[in-house]
Amino acid sequence: MALWGGRFEGGVDVSTQEFGASLPVDKHLYKQDIAGSRAHAAMLAKQGIITEADYETIASGLAAIEAEIDAGAFVFDINDEDIHMAIESELTRRIGEAGKRLHTGRSRNDQVATDTRLAAKALSKQLMEANLKLRQVLVRVAIDNGTVVLPGMTHLQHAQPVLLSHHLLAYYWMFTRDFKRLDAAFEAADASPLGAAALAGTTYPLDRVATAYAMGFTRVIPNSLDAVSDRDFLLDLHFACSTMAMHLSRLAEEIVLWSSSEFGYITLSDSFSTGSSIMPQKKNPDFAELIRGKTGRVYGNLMQLLVTCKGLPLAYNKDLQEDKEGALDSARTLSQCLEVMAGMVDTMHINAERMRAACRVGHLAATDVADYLAKKGMPFREAHAVVGHLVLECDHRGCQLEDLPFEVFQEASPLFAPDITSALDIDAIVAARTTEGGTSPSAVKEQLKFVRTSLVGDEARVGGLGYVVSMGAGA
Amino acid sequence: MALWGGRFEGGVDVSTQEFGASLPVDKHLYKQDIAGSRAHAAMLAKQGIITEADYETIASGLAAIEAEIDAGAFVFDINDEDIHMAIESELTRRIGEAGKRLHTGRSRNDQVATDTRLAAKALSKQLMEANLKLRQVLVRVAIDNGTVVLPGMTHLQHAQPVLLSHHLLAYYWMFTRDFKRLDAAFEAADASPLGAAALAGTTYPLDRVATAYAMGFTRVIPNSLDAVSDRDFLLDLHFACSTMAMHLSRLAEEIVLWSSSEFGYITLSDSFSTGSSIMPQKKNPDFAELIRGKTGRVYGNLMQLLVTCKGLPLAYNKDLQEDKEGALDSARTLSQCLEVMAGMVDTMHINAERMRAACRVGHLAATDVADYLAKKGMPFREAHAVVGHLVLECDHRGCQLEDLPFEVFQEASPLFAPDITSALDIDAIVAARTTEGGTSPSAVKEQLKFVRTSLVGDEARVGGLGYVVSMGAGA
Amino acid sequence: MALWGGRFEGGVDVSTQEFGASLPVDKHLYKQDIAGSRAHAAMLAKQGIITEADYETIASGLAAIEAEIDAGAFVFDINDEDIHMAIESELTRRIGEAGKRLHTGRSRNDQVATDTRLAAKALSKQLMEANLKLRQVLVRVAIDNGTVVLPGMTHLQHAQPVLLSHHLLAYYWMFTRDFKRLDAAFEAADASPLGAAALAGTTYPLDRVATAYAMGFTRVIPNSLDAVSDRDFLLDLHFACSTMAMHLSRLAEEIVLWSSSEFGYITLSDSFSTGSSIMPQKKNPDFAELIRGKTGRVYGNLMQLLVTCKGLPLAYNKDLQEDKEGALDSARTLSQCLEVMAGMVDTMHINAERMRAACRVGHLAATDVADYLAKKGMPFREAHAVVGHLVLECDHRGCQLEDLPFEVFQEASPLFAPDITSALDIDAIVAARTTEGGTSPSAVKEQLKFVRTSLVGDEARVGGLGYVVSMGAGA
Amino acid sequence: MALWGGRFEGGVDVSTQEFGASLPVDKHLYKQDIAGSRAHAAMLAKQGIITEADYETIASGLAAIEAEIDAGAFVFDINDEDIHMAIESELTRRIGEAGKRLHTGRSRNDQVATDTRLAAKALSKQLMEANLKLRQVLVRVAIDNGTVVLPGMTHLQHAQPVLLSHHLLAYYWMFTRDFKRLDAAFEAADASPLGAAALAGTTYPLDRVATAYAMGFTRVIPNSLDAVSDRDFLLDLHFACSTMAMHLSRLAEEIVLWSSSEFGYITLSDSFSTGSSIMPQKKNPDFAELIRGKTGRVYGNLMQLLVTCKGLPLAYNKDLQEDKEGALDSARTLSQCLEVMAGMVDTMHINAERMRAACRVGHLAATDVADYLAKKGMPFREAHAVVGHLVLECDHRGCQLEDLPFEVFQEASPLFAPDITSALDIDAIVAARTTEGGTSPSAVKEQLKFVRTSLVGDEARVGGLGYVVSMGAGA
Repeated sequence: MALWGGRFEGGVDVSTQEFGASLPVDKHLYKQDIAGSRAHAAMLAKQGIITEADYETIASGLAAIEAEIDAGAFVFDINDEDIHMAIESELTRRIGEAGKRLHTGRSRNDQVATDTRLAAKALSKQLMEANLKLRQVLVRVAIDNGTVVLPGMTHLQHAQPVLLSHHLLAYYWMFTRDFKRLDAAFEAADASPLGAAALAGTTYPLDRVATAYAMGFTRVIPNSLDAVSDRDFLLDLHFACSTMAMHLSRLAEEIVLWSSSEFGYITLSDSFSTGSSIMPQKKNPDFAELIRGKTGRVYGNLMQLLVTCKGLPLAYNKDLQEDKEGALDSARTLSQCLEVMAGMVDTMHINAERMRAACRVGHLAATDVADYLAKKGMPFREAHAVVGHLVLECDHRGCQLEDLPFEVFQEASPLFAPDITSALDIDAIVAARTTEGGTSPSAVKEQLKFVRTSLVGDEARVGGLGYVVSMGAGA
Repeated sequence: MALWGGRFEGGVDVSTQEFGASLPVDKHLYKQDIAGSRAHAAMLAKQGIITEADYETIASGLAAIEAEIDAGAFVFDINDEDIHMAIESELTRRIGEAGKRLHTGRSRNDQVATDTRLAAKALSKQLMEANLKLRQVLVRVAIDNGTVVLPGMTHLQHAQPVLLSHHLLAYYWMFTRDFKRLDAAFEAADASPLGAAALAGTTYPLDRVATAYAMGFTRVIPNSLDAVSDRDFLLDLHFACSTMAMHLSRLAEEIVLWSSSEFGYITLSDSFSTGSSIMPQKKNPDFAELIRGKTGRVYGNLMQLLVTCKGLPLAYNKDLQEDKEGALDSARTLSQCLEVMAGMVDTMHINAERMRAACRVGHLAATDVADYLAKKGMPFREAHAVVGHLVLECDHRGCQLEDLPFEVFQEASPLFAPDITSALDIDAIVAARTTEGGTSPSAVKEQLKFVRTSLVGDEARVGGLGYVVSMGAGA
Repeated sequence: MALWGGRFEGGVDVSTQEFGASLPVDKHLYKQDIAGSRAHAAMLAKQGIITEADYETIASGLAAIEAEIDAGAFVFDINDEDIHMAIESELTRRIGEAGKRLHTGRSRNDQVATDTRLAAKALSKQLMEANLKLRQVLVRVAIDNGTVVLPGMTHLQHAQPVLLSHHLLAYYWMFTRDFKRLDAAFEAADASPLGAAALAGTTYPLDRVATAYAMGFTRVIPNSLDAVSDRDFLLDLHFACSTMAMHLSRLAEEIVLWSSSEFGYITLSDSFSTGSSIMPQKKNPDFAELIRGKTGRVYGNLMQLLVTCKGLPLAYNKDLQEDKEGALDSARTLSQCLEVMAGMVDTMHINAERMRAACRVGHLAATDVADYLAKKGMPFREAHAVVGHLVLECDHRGCQLEDLPFEVFQEASPLFAPDITSALDIDAIVAARTTEGGTSPSAVKEQLKFVRTSLVGDEARVGGLGYVVSMGAGA
Repeated sequence: MALWGGRFEGGVDVSTQEFGASLPVDKHLYKQDIAGSRAHAAMLAKQGIITEADYETIASGLAAIEAEIDAGAFVFDINDEDIHMAIESELTRRIGEAGKRLHTGRSRNDQVATDTRLAAKALSKQLMEANLKLRQVLVRVAIDNGTVVLPGMTHLQHAQPVLLSHHLLAYYWMFTRDFKRLDAAFEAADASPLGAAALAGTTYPLDRVATAYAMGFTRVIPNSLDAVSDRDFLLDLHFACSTMAMHLSRLAEEIVLWSSSEFGYITLSDSFSTGSSIMPQKKNPDFAELIRGKTGRVYGNLMQLLVTCKGLPLAYNKDLQEDKEGALDSARTLSQCLEVMAGMVDTMHINAERMRAACRVGHLAATDVADYLAKKGMPFREAHAVVGHLVLECDHRGCQLEDLPFEVFQEASPLFAPDITSALDIDAIVAARTTEGGTSPSAVKEQLKFVRTSLVGDEARVGGLGYVVSMGAGA
């Protein structure tokens, strides 16, 4: 409170102060706060605004505090309101006068923006790494099950047979897009607000570029008002988390479906299943459901910040204090979901025979039979109708298209010849879809080349992100 | 894990287990869980399913555990996954065999639904009480400032003068509606799912009504599948919180506006203001902004649960584990916001002269001048146009409507007579709005009668909610 | 524009005016607007504010305009900005002077609030009726399939057998709760704001109760500021729509699952299925998917209004113009979804043998076998473990619990006796769940009594809603 | 319906069909649909799958239909369900046999994905152009008002003086970030799904690259399942719209505040103001409020699609039909908001004296006085406290910091010397903030260089987007 006490006559009561305090949340950014203070102090000294000696006292004081928090030994005091004051006041307690000079040319407004951006970079990077791991697992499982065929579905109805590898790679591409969004969030965060001070810049000859580089930022924000009021970079992170959660919910849904008795396409490993407290036979895909359920939380966090930012005038408003909790929560949630999903996919048993058997249901050959007619000259729309009637005939007979006697085909159209069998064979159907991006083994092989290129590129990208202040584990 | 170990060969790895565990959240429901177990055990004994002796052992074991958690002395173990297992396994450790009989005819599915409903009742009641306190403060301040006039606004433009009491009572009614929604949430939660077991009921002769009454529920849920899969009562709570947060955000916005230099209508007490780390002169309406900012969080929590519940097949799915954290968060948030808002309104200084002075700006008499003409026979639409031109004239002269010389009025319409002055006087304008719900002192006095009736009714309602298992503070 | 032209020197350009106009949306409220004007004019005459003759001219003018719009013959002009001006200016064109007196003591602020509340009542009532129809269908299908058994699921894994009727009644109760929310929305809307004028009441001796009753409102809003700025009643409607959409999405999800090849529990009628443009064999549960997909729209509309209302100062702000489109959209969407769902459920074919056959998978008897042991004295937790091991044994043998030789049971526990067979029979398992709300035929019969009581009560409620201005079909 | 009639025995009833039809929405994509069909037919001919003659018949048939729709002369029939069938069936009616061959090797699944991506590109481009226009206006107004000073605010309290140009440029940067997001949405949409057919690719030797290039796509989607089920590119567009709406809401909020009597910083032109139907004096910032209010709609649309996509299994599900309406709505909304905002900012009158006068309130010099002491050696924290006490003294005296007698300064600290006046002068305070991104005229001049670079770059980017199928105006 000493922080701004001069002008005040009355004090804030305890529960109100607790309501206003951000410390329980922003203490998790202690390493970011200390990295920012270190860079600021070094620059103040370089510019002659404080002495070299002051800087050294400050730097070693900060290092000692950081080590203590890292070790879980630091006791936070809610009276300190936020992480900035918690550290600055402890620093001043320890090193005296020099500590009081640290805040020269700085405001909590640019300080908190700095901390939050550093954290956003660390969280984005973490998620990029976890995202890559899941994609690697998907590729591994796709390759190892290269010949497995299952019924491709639309509307959850059997449509056409597809390779399992092709199916899994569809998810690979979804997560690849999320990686790009995470990268955009990283880029958005990667600009230093330090030096914007309260909102207007300062009267001190600060070197903003120097502090930016010292903290690992690649540029400075060109407008001080924007610097303290912008939280777009967190929205970018929330959005990347939201689409990623949505993609995970789709994969999770399929895992739940596939591990049901009715589908039986996969069996989850015991390590990624749970039982029931009352029903002894149960083996539940709990973790897939939980991943699916967490989508709500991630969407909710995105909505939270969008709502909070709506209609705020320039520059800093206290509403913005609500920016960090959701971001930390979504990042942590997604880190876990990605890791658990990777483990689940990596260890699930694929019941290839069950998948293949399912291809015997639902007239999966129908499109190819229609194509057969179309290739013999019948307009596709007419061929479609002919096959539709054949399927209806199957329904009445209780059989599949491939079980119909040849005469029935011939009655339906004289264009049918004995070679129609090739349009009725599951493997032949799959193999025939050779166009780019199709499900034939040859096309999937081509697709895997693109996959590898994208994986290598994204791995290189994470490697080249530059210096990032990692999240601390001590708070 | 022993809980459902029989059927499993492999174990779950630590980080996955942590991901799946709900204990960090549902441990806050320990009193609800224990109340439910106590009622269940008593009923099992009454029905002869367990012995009286077993019941007594269980009851005293539960009492000891509850006291320990209340005292903050209980050590939770994440391996216990959830509060149900944490308590049941500790109970069995302490009392042996009898503990293993507690779960007879019960599943975690109906158990968690029971706990959550009990908690929802407690949270709704808390919020109803906090809601009433704020409404009482609003009424107190309205009555104490019965003669204060300020510019009523539409589009943030001065429209017509209104009594401050009338303005504050508008908020009273908003929060009164929220009380009704909280009450509906309470009602929705007030039905016992216990006895639904996993999803289908049980083969034991349970007495569901007995356990319901013992826990303070007034009815039982008539369908076991619905009992374990319904979370509507939490959505009702989220919705009540959302509209209440919205209303608070509106009041907060006005407090921020009114305490700006430009408005200067109020001065917040030092206890509900904060300063700046860099700008020594600042006195900021931080708490009002924070209340406004927290709207996002409350909306986000509503959206979270709506999203999570979307598309879930019957009956219980693990997705539903995501139901409690948001509800606890929103309830806690609103409790604080209501309390802080009550304190802020209670202690703010009303700058009555500043408000009155503001009534001298914006031609607040314009409508009454048009009414004056209309009452003399001019169709209202024409009168409106005449006054519009007079206002334009004022703009050119740089004066207010009440400052125009009488000749200008007469030039505009011969219907104007010297008694036009009565239509130009702020107090007369206010006093003339005597229709029901209007802003005249007499109408507001009538309104206050309704206010008191509603307050008394809602206070009685809270008093008559019956036995509610309160939230524990020990976890 | 003549409406407020007096004070203005410049005009609004066309595209800006189009942006600001609400006519494309609020023209759908023409019957509400005319009903309000009729009531207002009648009261003005009764109070001697306008003449009886003027009233009669106004009333017949309004009637003519209404008939013209009903017939689809009225040409709306976007220059009229909103439905209020469209009708008032046309009225004045037709009847002259008297038309200009209609707006006496009224503002568009209370007028639009009146129209919107009348529309909210009509929409709520429509939805209550559609909701009842779906519930009636659910009950009909439940009764007609009283003996059908299917695997009750948790986590989409077979859990315990349940009656299909019990399963369908779970949805009955969900929609019953939604009816209650719709009723609350109706109640919330059922209060007249007319007479609040712009924001502060008026100087005319209006009889607000008279206009309220004439329009079918049962009460007047006691605070004029609140009257023009409150949109809570629409939020109540949005919320009722949101939970109803969520419940529909759950039922839709099950319909999609059940009509898949893998489940095969139901066959949708051709009238509620669609095909594919390329795959001739496809029969897709399109309408169920579309209902599920529309959940997003309804949630989005709720979020829209919550966001729009956030942080608005008193009293009316133009932001509120965004209130109607979403409400009309959600109400229309839900009306359709309820009707289509009712038709789909009413006409679907239930494959009872397939459902029963599915009960032979997933060891549905496991809980009852554990209960068997528990009833013979083994603590439930131990019994659970014993059965878990039996299930594991089944997995290794590739059989179901009911297929295990009696010796295996006896090896697992000497408590097993030949009467264990009764715990292994699906029908016996179902029949044993006789506790209130359980799935046994007798308990479901009891449940149906409650169902009928609630149906009759809700039907009576709709019948007793009083006079409601119905939505017009002509705009 | 002929489309998939073969397999069906019963028909869909009218209201159900209407519920399922997407035509009212997707007819707006007719140019995209026709462009896709044209490219597909040309490629089929090139690959020898249909004859050159058939292609020419198809192409001229499509051209005739497109011209007719462009002219508003085409009558859509709801029985055609969607735009694809509306055009294909009309084409077949007109050209016979050849029309039935058009759908060879194509499904509505890849067709609708193609149309939607083409539309997303067109909408993104439109918004990029509108975004640029607003930014150009902001820069123009900033430059033309280069010397205007106003109170910079935090917490809506006067903080430090800033240049109006600096303030407006903060918005410039916000919208610049949105441009980048729009560009990312464009990029995401810019990949062709055509050739994915229903979900698995086709058996025809399609040339996907050829159709992609013919439609203006720069790449093809490498996985057919992903191609038909991905709607991420629309989410990217929704997200860009959401942050842009949020930024607009902030600017709108300031316009509402600034045009209030209390602030009086700006006067909106009559062309961007409206009046009241009852209060003749009113001049309301309606359009700014409406822009602010539309934030809800845009957020709601984002939420809608996120919710709809949650948990969908591969590949196409009918839920996805809900993808287009919200995107069209948000894009249209933002186009209007950007245009109206540009006009409003462009034409508003800036009351520079009023802004400057406001700088005389709120002790704007306080930070600089503290800096003054700090530069003389007092630790900043102590200096802050000294100035806090001086402000308190001012409050007691009812004056501003700059009005205090020199003796009071000296009493507070002997470090104060007569040159303190330089720290008290508004222009000097502004001029002193010369660090990069600060508010001094020199720093803003530097900032404008970056602004121009970014503007030129983004203008070039829009110019280089390549061939885009524009939205049609005829449907």
